[in-house]
Amino acid sequence: MIRNFKLIIEYDGCAYHGWQRQKTDRSIQGEIEKAASKMTNQPITITASGRTDAGVHAFGQTANFKCDTKITPEGFRSGLNCLLDDDIVICACDEVDDDFHARFNVKSKIYRYNILNRQLPEAINRQYQWHVRKKLDLESMRAAIKHIIGPHDFKAFENTGSPRPHTTRTIFNASLIEHKHGKIIFEIEADGFLRFMVRNITGTLVDVGLGKITPKRFNEILLSLDRDQASATAPPQGLFLVEVKY
Amino acid sequence: MIRNFKLIIEYDGCAYHGWQRQKTDRSIQGEIEKAASKMTNQPITITASGRTDAGVHAFGQTANFKCDTKITPEGFRSGLNCLLDDDIVICACDEVDDDFHARFNVKSKIYRYNILNRQLPEAINRQYQWHVRKKLDLESMRAAIKHIIGPHDFKAFENTGSPRPHTTRTIFNASLIEHKHGKIIFEIEADGFLRFMVRNITGTLVDVGLGKITPKRFNEILLSLDRDQASATAPPQGLFLVEVKY
Repeated sequence: MIRNFKLIIEYDGCAYHGWQRQKTDRSIQGEIEKAASKMTNQPITITASGRTDAGVHAFGQTANFKCDTKITPEGFRSGLNCLLDDDIVICACDEVDDDFHARFNVKSKIYRYNILNRQLPEAINRQYQWHVRKKLDLESMRAAIKHIIGPHDFKAFENTGSPRPHTTRTIFNASLIEHKHGKIIFEIEADGFLRFMVRNITGTLVDVGLGKITPKRFNEILLSLDRDQASATAPPQGLFLVEVKY
Repeated sequence: MIRNFKLIIEYDGCAYHGWQRQKTDRSIQGEIEKAASKMTNQPITITASGRTDAGVHAFGQTANFKCDTKITPEGFRSGLNCLLDDDIVICACDEVDDDFHARFNVKSKIYRYNILNRQLPEAINRQYQWHVRKKLDLESMRAAIKHIIGPHDFKAFENTGSPRPHTTRTIFNASLIEHKHGKIIFEIEADGFLRFMVRNITGTLVDVGLGKITPKRFNEILLSLDRDQASATAPPQGLFLVEVKY
């Protein structure tokens, strides 16, 4: 009998060419499929909630795969963790209804972007954040963030190389929280994200924080639907896929 | 005029063969000496508060070097950070009295050891902690820790390969703090440490937490002065040199 398994996956993206299976480069999907195929002696295809790009991390990427097997969910969880390198961890495996689809059934996704905002960089955790040396004006950034809440066409923040037919997404929540020692966390929840969308929003928000762009101008960029008006893409290592809701 | 410079250094030890300069392998000392020599056009020797072993990290390693130069302390700080890879950060550089010596003048050092105590490993931050799957009994570990406070001969916790003439050290503070999600921090301050001492104490403490050794037996091991009676050395990646006091 074909069974459907749901995985919750944490990974450190540093060593991978993103989620998606590649011909030669190592990818998260490729590594998990290889391990699951080895466990089941059959080719396994894993579907994630969406791709993450090269160098991006996840606490709660969610995926599913179908398979005719007697292996239990707990058997998959511990077996995959044994086979995978320690920068990919299967946090949970559950058997789910046949119609569960990790991408089509997504209600919302939460991403987090870590910024270190101080003069001095960090050696420890440098691979999990973007170091921005100049002092950011968080109030201006928060004023800009208000403009993206709700449904909007986010074409201005989409990577030009991979256009989607529909570029309207709904942002449910977005917040900027300041922690000790210059650590700033930008968190954003939406029904979906275009390619590079969080990193393009973050890059443009940081330019607001640096005073290069006003919050009003940030809104004009959003409304322009023109990628060329937005700022450079923030680097991948600060970005985490935190949670996928169904 | 020969001037004396004090450095406070943060590093991620993952990619290095420890602090000490090596003939072929990359070391923290070797990298900083190379950078400082390049800046000053003269061979520079850097003295640290003590070595850290391969894979051990530091938030506040302290070192000094002497040099006839017109470069300012701030010039060294920013110049060295430009030349060094981003897993070594010079947090501070100050000009100090000629008689300041980073090793001889140490009053105390603080080390921290991070344990992740839960069934599930972490992908993010795995390189900064020791994953111990079975539940640790922290009260037993705390009862054991009481035996090491004060001056003791720590020969039982010294690496057998590198004996010191005097093996008595004084522990000023030692604590075990439990944080959320199974994160346990063992912190220890002493006037000095023998080679592998923190990792050997940690390895033996974890065996107390696992119920393999009683707190009373832990004390007997300490008093035995016999390394063979103590447990295996805890892995390096959980260990951080936090601060050196003068």
